[in-house]
Amino acid sequence: MLTRLFVYHTAEDPFAFPAGPRLLKLRLFVQSGQSLSCTVVHADRYDSPGHELPQEMERIGCAGAYDIHEALIPAETGKCRYLFHIGNPAGEYLWYGERGSSENRDQAGAFQYAYIHRPQAIALPAWSSDAVVYQIYPESYHQGTLQGITDKLTYLQELGVTAIYMTPIFESPSGHKYNTSDYYKVDPGFGTLEDLKMLVGTAHRLGMKVLLDAVFNHSGDTFFAFRDVLEHGEASRYKDWFYIHSFPVSGAPAPGYETFAKAEASMPKLNMDHPEVADYMMDVARYWVREAGIDGWRLDVANEVTPAFWTRLRRELKAEFPDLLLIGEIMHASGPWLRGDQFDGGMNYLLRDAVLEFFAAQSAGPSRFMEQLLHQEALYNDQANSAMFQLLGSHDTLRFLTACKEGGRGWDREATAMSRMRLAVFFQMTYIGLPMIYYGDEVGMEGATDPHCRRPMLWEEQAQHTGLLDWYKRLISLRTEHEVLRRGAFRPWFTDETRSILGYVRRSGQDRMGLIINNSPNRYHLELPAYRSDTKVLTELLSGLTLRSSSKLLVEIEPFGCLMLH
Amino acid sequence: MLTRLFVYHTAEDPFAFPAGPRLLKLRLFVQSGQSLSCTVVHADRYDSPGHELPQEMERIGCAGAYDIHEALIPAETGKCRYLFHIGNPAGEYLWYGERGSSENRDQAGAFQYAYIHRPQAIALPAWSSDAVVYQIYPESYHQGTLQGITDKLTYLQELGVTAIYMTPIFESPSGHKYNTSDYYKVDPGFGTLEDLKMLVGTAHRLGMKVLLDAVFNHSGDTFFAFRDVLEHGEASRYKDWFYIHSFPVSGAPAPGYETFAKAEASMPKLNMDHPEVADYMMDVARYWVREAGIDGWRLDVANEVTPAFWTRLRRELKAEFPDLLLIGEIMHASGPWLRGDQFDGGMNYLLRDAVLEFFAAQSAGPSRFMEQLLHQEALYNDQANSAMFQLLGSHDTLRFLTACKEGGRGWDREATAMSRMRLAVFFQMTYIGLPMIYYGDEVGMEGATDPHCRRPMLWEEQAQHTGLLDWYKRLISLRTEHEVLRRGAFRPWFTDETRSILGYVRRSGQDRMGLIINNSPNRYHLELPAYRSDTKVLTELLSGLTLRSSSKLLVEIEPFGCLMLH
Repeated sequence: MLTRLFVYHTAEDPFAFPAGPRLLKLRLFVQSGQSLSCTVVHADRYDSPGHELPQEMERIGCAGAYDIHEALIPAETGKCRYLFHIGNPAGEYLWYGERGSSENRDQAGAFQYAYIHRPQAIALPAWSSDAVVYQIYPESYHQGTLQGITDKLTYLQELGVTAIYMTPIFESPSGHKYNTSDYYKVDPGFGTLEDLKMLVGTAHRLGMKVLLDAVFNHSGDTFFAFRDVLEHGEASRYKDWFYIHSFPVSGAPAPGYETFAKAEASMPKLNMDHPEVADYMMDVARYWVREAGIDGWRLDVANEVTPAFWTRLRRELKAEFPDLLLIGEIMHASGPWLRGDQFDGGMNYLLRDAVLEFFAAQSAGPSRFMEQLLHQEALYNDQANSAMFQLLGSHDTLRFLTACKEGGRGWDREATAMSRMRLAVFFQMTYIGLPMIYYGDEVGMEGATDPHCRRPMLWEEQAQHTGLLDWYKRLISLRTEHEVLRRGAFRPWFTDETRSILGYVRRSGQDRMGLIINNSPNRYHLELPAYRSDTKVLTELLSGLTLRSSSKLLVEIEPFGCLMLH
Repeated sequence: MLTRLFVYHTAEDPFAFPAGPRLLKLRLFVQSGQSLSCTVVHADRYDSPGHELPQEMERIGCAGAYDIHEALIPAETGKCRYLFHIGNPAGEYLWYGERGSSENRDQAGAFQYAYIHRPQAIALPAWSSDAVVYQIYPESYHQGTLQGITDKLTYLQELGVTAIYMTPIFESPSGHKYNTSDYYKVDPGFGTLEDLKMLVGTAHRLGMKVLLDAVFNHSGDTFFAFRDVLEHGEASRYKDWFYIHSFPVSGAPAPGYETFAKAEASMPKLNMDHPEVADYMMDVARYWVREAGIDGWRLDVANEVTPAFWTRLRRELKAEFPDLLLIGEIMHASGPWLRGDQFDGGMNYLLRDAVLEFFAAQSAGPSRFMEQLLHQEALYNDQANSAMFQLLGSHDTLRFLTACKEGGRGWDREATAMSRMRLAVFFQMTYIGLPMIYYGDEVGMEGATDPHCRRPMLWEEQAQHTGLLDWYKRLISLRTEHEVLRRGAFRPWFTDETRSILGYVRRSGQDRMGLIINNSPNRYHLELPAYRSDTKVLTELLSGLTLRSSSKLLVEIEPFGCLMLH
């Protein structure tokens, strides 16, 4: 009985969200394994019954146990009523609305998207859609100073980078500087405010944006307010800025206060629900944009700070600096923070997990990889997806090349590690969102997790893997050249489980790019379904070769090879 | 293959929510139709792998295409990591986490509930958990004045009502007063500020709370700011308080501005994103609590007002008046407004739909009714469910008795209408949330939708259905006497589709109440599974009769009868 088919939708992000002031995007999950056609029937919420219009939905693909279907529907007044009709070839069907599934349309009810509020439809900063991001760990980059980084901005420009993100640079006793002493001061080891201004100014002249990292979840234990609490105990006027368990306050043997993670005595958790603390940190956030002209914030441990602070931060900062990009560090599914009222995007560690699994460990085949991509994209609205920092690694993970060497299949897995890394970079540079390069990955740096992944940047050319560096440059250049690679929608094309090959398409208007990845040590001749029917001649952009396409497309692909068809 | 079983969970409300400062409630949807056991495996987010504890989940019941499983898990630090294990009797299993389903635990990933913020765990006003609400349409109640209502408060007290909610009483040219002229003035036709204070004061002395109705989505076209716009056009300093399409502004032939619903010229939509308008309405909301001592607000068209205003309203009002109840009028699935940052509860029209279907129209049997109840409860967190206004009708619907007369099965459906209404009231008074009685329903008033449902209250005893009134009193009295009926959890017991009978249980700690409803014109002897195993003697509270229970329970039930077993 089709009414027992499990389908899921709710009239809220990420299942329903504005795709413009008068356009609503709908997403429907349908239990996979059957051939079904889905239609959405929609009307203005205040139209009487009978005014509904049917619209066929697009089946995006299978995300494992469920298929994803989507539709863009007009919402002239911003008030939308709709329900779904799902049918199979045998003529069975169901209606699905806010009251669940039924063969009876009235019993299904209708979903209601109450109202598209204007601020919900605000776009991202224009610059961010085209960004290629580069993460720098300042202590290890060049001379360990801001001046040193400034000196290398032309290197980054040549690489094709358009935005740099630096881990914290504010005064702190540690190397990583995630335990801030003074939120208003550049760490003297890194330089001065003037050095920062010089860095930002130079970057801007070279066409690059600069993002800084702020830690509002906790301070350092050397932060003035916490020092005051340590000194004056219960009498301190800052005692409510933290979560103190008992007085007098001590960091040892176990911290007598709430901390980041577990008992990290040097990182007392800040009470961001306290109006004074919130005001203080708001001022910090504004100060560096005003003073140094930075272009965005990456916010540390964003998932553990009260959402009320983030909505305020967004509201106040975006009002003053509409071109500011706000990225939250959330190392897991980040939906609640990416609904449009807090962050533009996040650090996409979930994507990294999938990429590691497929390219580095080779513990998953192309079908699961594709399912993971669709599963993850469906966690977020389109705007958030287009602003995710798509990373292969960071200062908190082992480096990707190391993961490739440790993982993989076959006796020659170490020998194929570089090939698999190159494929992953190909994927990264042809996927949605903002590719983020962790410093040194582009020259083949290796290293296990912290501290090994934070080693000094390899600047000696003879130690660099210049082939890899060229590969990065070439792919970034192709991404820059082809808007469809930056802004086009992602669609599955095919997966070949036996051969470990997958194909996907990026599309934007009439423009379509076909991408193929061979994650195996074998050369193959493939006969593929054409991914577009209106073009007879295609160019493979990496080789420059021309291909003829009819209803079938014949291609040859190298071991661990990839193709970019246009 | 079990990994293709469709399951759904996301680490956010209403699938994961705080049930206390250090307790997390989890809800999992699992494709129905199979016998499965579900376990949640959980740990602190910062514990290393291996520290996870398994906990069996409770299968709440079938909600149609999916079953609902729930668990309460401890979250000592407020930071929780978990994933689900689902198995069948054949030994097949899957792991389900934020990366989807897999037989491989690592590939499933783990869900992360980042942090339980303190304000998220704030409780409802203590008084609300026990409330029986009565809705008054002031123009039609008694003399059409506040004084007239005050005169009838002892009647309401005798009925058992503990809170009254009045539709708008502020100055307005209409009878319904949803087009406000002056937000700071009691409508002169209803009385004065002093009359309101007298009403609230008297109610409080009699142990009753008072809620008023505020309309912040739109004003009346006689509101001073809109009159200014009409008069001064583009020069008006209030022009941005509304959404004006073009100047000069006119209400006819079509309104040259955005309105409530479709072209309701007398109700121009307010721009609640404008700081001045938000400040103005915040002051209004505070004013009536401070000045008249009211106990709550019912907010009109809450679903179309910017959520930013509601979060502010909640934050500021609850800080000053922690015992204030905030109810949003949302006539459809209300999840987005009931996550803890906007409203305490809503007007539960979805529940009314289900009740209408089962009792009034008899177009659904007990299984679908039970599925609807579970489907709806799973839309919200526990706190929201306990604060829903559970209504059979309102000033915006046809009256329930009229629906019973128009609907139902069999040649004698008009004759059974009153019996079915009585059953619906039995259900209402033995279900979760806050039962809301629409004035006059308790004495058998009839009427089609607006304006017929807004007719003057029947005060002449000979015209009242006193049998129904006694039924209301008796059930309210039993609800008042038995805390389990007010605060206990709801669980399905059984459904008998052939006989149109259903049973459910309310439970709280060791206390359990069994409820049975016979929605058919036949008398039945039933042999039922005991709903608790530790009690051998039960009392039927409506009749006072004693029953013996073993593994089986034998009961007799009248046509359209009901039983309350304790």
